[in-house]
This record gives sequence, structure tokens and C-alpha cells, in this order.
Amino acid sequence: MEQTKPTRGVRLGDLVERFGGQLVGSADLVVSAIAPLDSADASQISFLSNSKLRALAGQSTAAALILSPLDDPTVAATYAGSRIVTTNPYAYFARVAQYFVSLEEQAPAPGIHPSAVVEPGAQVDASAHIGPHVTIEAGAVVKANVVIDHGCFVGRDAVIGEGTRLFANVTFHRQCVIGARGIIHSGAVIGGDGFGFAVESGVYLKIPQTGRVVIGDDVDIGSNTSIDRGAMADTVIEDGVKLDNQIQIGHNCHIGAHTAMAGCVGVAGSARIGSRCTFGGAAMVLGHLEIADNVHISSGSMVSRSVLEPGQYTGFYPLAKNAEWEKSAAIVRNLNSMREKIRTLEKTIKKLTEQNDD
Amino acid sequence: MEQTKPTRGVRLGDLVERFGGQLVGSADLVVSAIAPLDSADASQISFLSNSKLRALAGQSTAAALILSPLDDPTVAATYAGSRIVTTNPYAYFARVAQYFVSLEEQAPAPGIHPSAVVEPGAQVDASAHIGPHVTIEAGAVVKANVVIDHGCFVGRDAVIGEGTRLFANVTFHRQCVIGARGIIHSGAVIGGDGFGFAVESGVYLKIPQTGRVVIGDDVDIGSNTSIDRGAMADTVIEDGVKLDNQIQIGHNCHIGAHTAMAGCVGVAGSARIGSRCTFGGAAMVLGHLEIADNVHISSGSMVSRSVLEPGQYTGFYPLAKNAEWEKSAAIVRNLNSMREKIRTLEKTIKKLTEQNDD
Amino acid sequence: MEQTKPTRGVRLGDLVERFGGQLVGSADLVVSAIAPLDSADASQISFLSNSKLRALAGQSTAAALILSPLDDPTVAATYAGSRIVTTNPYAYFARVAQYFVSLEEQAPAPGIHPSAVVEPGAQVDASAHIGPHVTIEAGAVVKANVVIDHGCFVGRDAVIGEGTRLFANVTFHRQCVIGARGIIHSGAVIGGDGFGFAVESGVYLKIPQTGRVVIGDDVDIGSNTSIDRGAMADTVIEDGVKLDNQIQIGHNCHIGAHTAMAGCVGVAGSARIGSRCTFGGAAMVLGHLEIADNVHISSGSMVSRSVLEPGQYTGFYPLAKNAEWEKSAAIVRNLNSMREKIRTLEKTIKKLTEQNDD
Repeated sequence: MEQTKPTRGVRLGDLVERFGGQLVGSADLVVSAIAPLDSADASQISFLSNSKLRALAGQSTAAALILSPLDDPTVAATYAGSRIVTTNPYAYFARVAQYFVSLEEQAPAPGIHPSAVVEPGAQVDASAHIGPHVTIEAGAVVKANVVIDHGCFVGRDAVIGEGTRLFANVTFHRQCVIGARGIIHSGAVIGGDGFGFAVESGVYLKIPQTGRVVIGDDVDIGSNTSIDRGAMADTVIEDGVKLDNQIQIGHNCHIGAHTAMAGCVGVAGSARIGSRCTFGGAAMVLGHLEIADNVHISSGSMVSRSVLEPGQYTGFYPLAKNAEWEKSAAIVRNLNSMREKIRTLEKTIKKLTEQNDD
Repeated sequence: MEQTKPTRGVRLGDLVERFGGQLVGSADLVVSAIAPLDSADASQISFLSNSKLRALAGQSTAAALILSPLDDPTVAATYAGSRIVTTNPYAYFARVAQYFVSLEEQAPAPGIHPSAVVEPGAQVDASAHIGPHVTIEAGAVVKANVVIDHGCFVGRDAVIGEGTRLFANVTFHRQCVIGARGIIHSGAVIGGDGFGFAVESGVYLKIPQTGRVVIGDDVDIGSNTSIDRGAMADTVIEDGVKLDNQIQIGHNCHIGAHTAMAGCVGVAGSARIGSRCTFGGAAMVLGHLEIADNVHISSGSMVSRSVLEPGQYTGFYPLAKNAEWEKSAAIVRNLNSMREKIRTLEKTIKKLTEQNDD
Repeated sequence: MEQTKPTRGVRLGDLVERFGGQLVGSADLVVSAIAPLDSADASQISFLSNSKLRALAGQSTAAALILSPLDDPTVAATYAGSRIVTTNPYAYFARVAQYFVSLEEQAPAPGIHPSAVVEPGAQVDASAHIGPHVTIEAGAVVKANVVIDHGCFVGRDAVIGEGTRLFANVTFHRQCVIGARGIIHSGAVIGGDGFGFAVESGVYLKIPQTGRVVIGDDVDIGSNTSIDRGAMADTVIEDGVKLDNQIQIGHNCHIGAHTAMAGCVGVAGSARIGSRCTFGGAAMVLGHLEIADNVHISSGSMVSRSVLEPGQYTGFYPLAKNAEWEKSAAIVRNLNSMREKIRTLEKTIKKLTEQNDD
């Protein structure tokens, strides 16, 4: 891959001034990029966020290392480069990496591409970038420094908050709202109708979905993820929520602040999920459940009841060679008969024991 | 959220005239919107579809209530507003809610947006609405009152039936057909190639997918759902089928009328699914299976064999605290050894019993 | 459905000349299409790829049959039409079907649709077809005979290899690369940001995703599938990989040549998957795992540890009538207590046996 190589690089002193940490070494040393421990060269800075890799860090050829006070003494014993010592090297790495990107990335220029359709009555801030083949409907509000790429649709009366970016081919339906600094990746659909029907004589009657999707600040939404609008109330995604790709959020869900969901997660309608939860890939949550704050659901697990106590929860069938699985699955199907056998054994043994004790 | 508030409202007498039911109260009472039991105010109508909420209904401040003959006497004892008594209050609610929406919603105006590309040889009815950045290829037929929003693609010789709506960014491939009054949500892809290959020396050879997707009347298809075209025959979705978001329907599947699937369901190729079935979220169906009418598959369940008898079927690993799951999963992996232990116990006990009986 | 019916048809002699095999019958016999065994008529050619269908083949009314040397004697005893005998009739069928399609299908004409936006600095080969409402950003390279349909986005510096087709509404992000003869279906998103965050005081900090997605030759990618770009290195999809619809491939994954994944599969970040593997629908792979060559994962199975030995692996809870599942699931939840009971039984019996032996 092409490493990010800005022509001039960054002084270590500038990094410490911006992001803190204790510098051991020359403030005037210039690094050209940030790179992983196992590939960083003498012009680059790297980081140690996993103490198990201390030995690798000790032998690194990087010009400088970001590392924790805990790891520093061991690494410093063999590593001759400069060091930035900080309590959370991984967060520090994130900030430095963002900084390098900001140096070389050109922000999309303000303005509306001639092929875009902005209906009369839409308010688009002059600092916003509206790409080719975009449609912004009447009444929509696009705030300062927003970037809306190729092919996006922003429905009537929708609001796109300051500095938020919609990558190419996002659909953002009428009346929905997203706050500041959000990122919506390509193919995501925000505010499609929820899946609500009444049944009459075996035929489904559509229930109009008159609520919105209301999304807070600093929310990331992955590629091809869909979040449905509520039925009579709103679907709510609080600040700082991070949703990966291919996720389905049903109507009237409420997802608490700083909760993160990995790819392929599904949440059925009206589930109420707390703050700072995590969901592994392909975890599924049934509708109308409540999940407390700080609950962590493992990948591939089906949440079929409310989870009111924080902790890690899991439920998937363990993988095995197919022949072994065939055996275990056959027994699982008949666990009831196994339980009966044990009960019979218990009774027989009780009788035997009594006989022997006689 | 913004409640729907038409300026003039609707007379109860008009509702009963349109949708039936027995009115207890003034036909001239005007209601401005329909709202849930727990939030409806004195200008709104609400409904009771769950008998467990009778007490809540009895204390409702709504101007009027829709409820069943069974619930009516209890509720009427304490509730002073008007009542519409009907056998299926939830279906009645759906119709009333649709009616309120129809009163305030402006249908998209007929006509073709100047940015849309309609190829010569496409037939677009004069009453249809074709939004910005749409493409309609040659030979496609778009019938009366169709709405095709921003960014949609309708391939050559495709047919979009009367009154059907394609929300923004739908892809509807060549030759595929959808009937009347359908709804296809954003990001859905109808008629992509099925996943069919021959293997030769470990390399995959593509099998051309020359069939179509043929969709009946009154079918709803969710956001980012995909339905593949058939290999040599068609993929068929019958009337009244309701598909939620993020669903995958493989090539040559046949889905019977009025079957409903919740989000993230996957159906592999050539599965034949009956009518009036339901599939919970993330249920999966293997290929070439047959599923009878009126089969109900629970969320997260893998259907790995044909299901020929109606009923509810389930198969997912129960969720537990991670530490407990670790234990149960370890035992599941070794269920065979547990079975062996039980067999050994049974033999030993048989011997012991015989000794004791000697 | 509409069968493919080219006006003139194809001589059997031409097929054998192109694709090999031993012809038994007249080289001048003309067939108009290829059709399945159970529907092929006297103007069509069919094939037998499953020996269980020998009897059906023996009674076929098709003008000609493609079949294996093993099946030929049995079929020939009752079948009077022409035969093409070849070792891999299914692969032969694939080639013949492709050939029929190529005869009647008109390749999209070279050229750039007037509504497309091709930025200065993009290189589009004169033989490429660029459809309506497409955007090709600066620095992108579109090679010979590429087809890019309606609404696609090709980001800056991306490369689309010779003969590759992007169906309508594909998003192909900046710097990503796909080789020759690829197919990307509608709604797919290539090169969205990977899901990478550092956590600081309970808040997520985005880690810039500066790698690319690099895709080899002859790769097929299904509708609404997403492949994320790498964090500091690339996500790599090797030659001949076939991905079905609704698949999620996390950042920094590496998928070996000729591996195939069915619909709804999810692969978390940094997984390294070998060559010639297969994944059944909705199989899930956790992050940072290694999967050897020739590993086959069954549908609905969660891969939660590395799989270093070739073979078939499975892990899903068997489907049962709901009432039976309720019982088995309750026992699975308490398997530990069942194990304890067995241990108690074993001890008691040991004691009893010792008493009896005294």
C-alpha cells in the first residue's frame, strides 16, 4: 500500500505540544508518518499499545515510539530512538494518525456541483460541499462544513449537522436528523419505513411510520447499514454511537450514548439499549427488550430476553469438525431423553444403596 | 417528534363511514390525529389492541378510542370519551393512521425530472413521478401512479406495476417485474445475478443467470434487501409478501403469498417457501429446502432441513453470562463423552442390580 | 420466464470445436438454447451433471445432451438424441450457457453518457462504457472494455481492471483496485472505512483507515456486499474469489484465491483466510483468526478460533419444534448441573461396587 508520506513531516515537539505526553529525545526530530511496530522505518513514528509486544518495540527501527509509563523502562533498555510516554498510547496513536491525515488530505471544496439538485427551500451552508448527482429536497438543512458526496439523497426537512460527512450513495430520508461530526458510509439508509403491519384475515395492512430517526453528535454509521424511522415516535441514536457495516436497527429503537456494534448486528424494533454497550459481529437483539448500560454481547449471540445486569453475555454453538458436530447436535436434540436416563439411574442407585445399607 | 397535525381533523362519523365499526359518542366530534394510548391527548384518537392495557385505556385522556367488543365494557366503565367498537382494533388503527397520512401528505407530482434519463423505447405513464438522477432503460414499462425517487435504476424491459413506489437509490434490474401497490425501500437490489458456478480444476466458472425476479402485488421490500434473479427459471415472490431490511433471497427461490420475513433473514437458492409463513430476524434457510404453508421460524434459527408440517420452529443457543456459556459450550463439545459415561453407568448398575438380586 | 432464443442457434459441431468433448451424433444439428433436463424441448440442448438423474436424462426430449463418460452408456440405452460426452458436464454447461448469452446479448456501447461526471485527470479507456449519473474522480483509471453502469462512484486514484463490470449503484472508493474480468453487483461498497477506534475515557476516537482494498482478477462481489479498506495496510482479496450478496469483510482481511462465500457471511477485521475455502450462508468469522486452505465452514456457523486443518466445520443449534427446543435449551443452560449429577452417580456407584466386591 501507499504509506502516507507528507513532504515535510512533523516535529516530535509539535506532537507533544498538541497531544501531550512526555518526550524523551529531541523535540526537533521530524517524523514523516505513523506506522505499525513491525514495519516502521527510521523516518517514522510507531506505538506500543500491547505490553506483550515489548520485545518487538525494544528492537524497533522507528525514529520514535509512543508508549506507556509501564512499558517504557523495559523498552528503553534496548531501544535507542526517541519516546513519547503517555498513559493511553493507542488513543495517542489515533490522534497522531488523524493529524497526519489532516496534513495531507485536501478537504472537499465548498460549493454545489452543477449536476446536484438542490430544491428551492433547502438551506445549504456556503461552506458545505455537495457532490455530483446529489439531491437535497425542500426544507432540508445542511449545516456548515458538511460534505455530501456523489449520489446521496437528503429528504425534505432533514437536518445534517455541522461537519458531518455523507459518503457516496447514502440515503437520508425526510425529517431525519443527524448532529455534528457524524460519518455515514456509502449505501447506508437512514429513515426507511419501519416494519409494522396489522394483520386482517391473514393479509398485512401497513402501519404508517410517522416518526423520524434522530441521531446525536459524533455518530459513525457503516456501509450498507439501515436504521428505520419510528412508527409513531422516533428511533433515537445517542451521541458517540458507532455502528459498523450491514447493521439493521428496527423502528423505535433507542441506542444509548457511546454504544458500539460490530458488523452484521441486528436489533429488532423498540429495543432499548443502554450506554457504553458493545455488540460483537452478527449479534441479534429481539424486539421490545431492554439492555442495561455496560452490557457486552459476544459475536453471534442471540439476545432473546432483557439483560438488566452489566457484564459479558454469550450464546453461540461451538464450532467443531462436522462429524463431531453431527454427534453433539444429535444429542442436543435428545437432551431430554439423556436427562430421563440420569433420573432413572438416580432412582435405581438410590434403591441399590438402600438395599446395601439394609 | 412532530405529530401529524392536519389543520382541520376528521369527524368520527367520517371514520365509521369509511372503515366501519360501531360508534358510541358524537359523530361530529373531530379528532386531529391518531396517537398511542400513553400519549394521546384530548384532540386525538387512540386505540386498544392489547387487552392487558385495559386499565390504561380506561384512564386515557384521548378524545376517542378504537377498541374491541371484548374490551369495551371494562374500558367504558371509567372512560368518558367516544368509542369506536370493532373486532380488529389494530387493523382499524392501521387504516385510520393511513387515512390521516393521506390527508396531509402531498403525493409526488406527475412528471419526469429534467435530470432523469429515460431511454427511447421506455414507456412511462403520464401519471408517474420520476425523480432526479433516475435512469429508465429502453423497453421498461412504468405504469400509472408509480413513484420512482432519486437515483433509482430500472433496467431494460423491466415492469413497475401500478401505484408501486421505489424509494431513493433502488436498483431494479432488466426484465424483472413487480406488480401493483408495491413498495421497495432504498438500497434494495432486485434482480442481481444469482450465485451460481461450476467448478473446474478448483476454479469457478460463472453460470449465466438468465431468469428474472417476478414479484406480485402488494409486496413490500425493505432497505438494502437483495433478491437475486433465477438461473434458468425465475425467482418468484407472490402477492402480499413483506420483506424487512437487509434480507437476502437467493436465485430461484419461491416465496408464497403473505409470508413475512423480519430483518437480516437469508434464504439460499432454490428454497421453496409456503404461504403465510413468518421468519424472525436473522433466521436462515438453506438451499433447495421446502417449507410448508403456515410455518413460523423463530429469530436466529438455522433451517437446515425441509419443514413440512406447520408450527413454530426454533434453533438458537440460549444466551448466558459468558462464564456460564464457557462451561456449557465446553460440555456441548463433549456431549458424546457424557453419553458414554451414562452408558457405562447403566451397564455397571445393571451388573450391580443383578448381583444384588442374586 | 423468457428463454434465451437466438434466431439462428448453434451447431453441435461448433460447440465441440469451441469447448471440446466427444460428439455422438450429427455435427450439423442446430440447438437454439440450453435448458434444464426437465424442461428442455426438441430444439434445445440439456445436460446431466448428477448421476441420480440418469433415468430422467434417458427419457429427455432434448435435441442433445451433455453428459459424462460414466453416465453415457446407461443414458444412451434409452435416449435417442445427440450426445456430447465430457468429463465435467456441469462446467461444459456453464461454458455453453455463457456462449448462448454472448450470442444474444449486446455489450453496452463504448462511450461516456452525457450525464456522467468524469473529473479532469481521470483516465477512461475509449472502449469503456460509462453509464448515466456516474462519477469518476480525478486520478482514477478505467481500463479497456470496462462497463460502469448507472449511478456508480469511482473515487480518486482507484483502478478498474480490464473487462470488469460495475453494475448500477456500486460505490468504489478512492485508491482501491480491482483486476481484470471482475463483476461487482449493485449496492456493493468497496473501500469504506474499517471499524477502528481507540477508547479514551469511554469515548471512541476514530483511527484513520489509510489502507486500500486490493482485489485480484476474476473476482465476483455480490449485491449490497461491503469490503472495508485497511487501517494502515491493505485489505486483500485474491484472484478468483467469489462473494455472494450481503457479505461483510472487515478491514485488513486477507482472502485467499478461489475462496467462495455464500450470502450474509461476515468476516471481522484482520482475519486471514486461505485459498479454496468455502463458507456457507451466514457463517461468521471473528477477527484476527487464521483459516487454512481448503477449510469448509457450514452455514450459520460461528468461527471463534483459528482453523488450521482442512476439513468441514460446523456449529449451529439444530432446529426443532419450538416446544422441544424450549426443553433442550433449558437443559443446555444447565448442562453443568447435569455433569455434576453424573459425577455424583459415578462416585456412588464406585462406592457401591466396592461394597459389593468386599
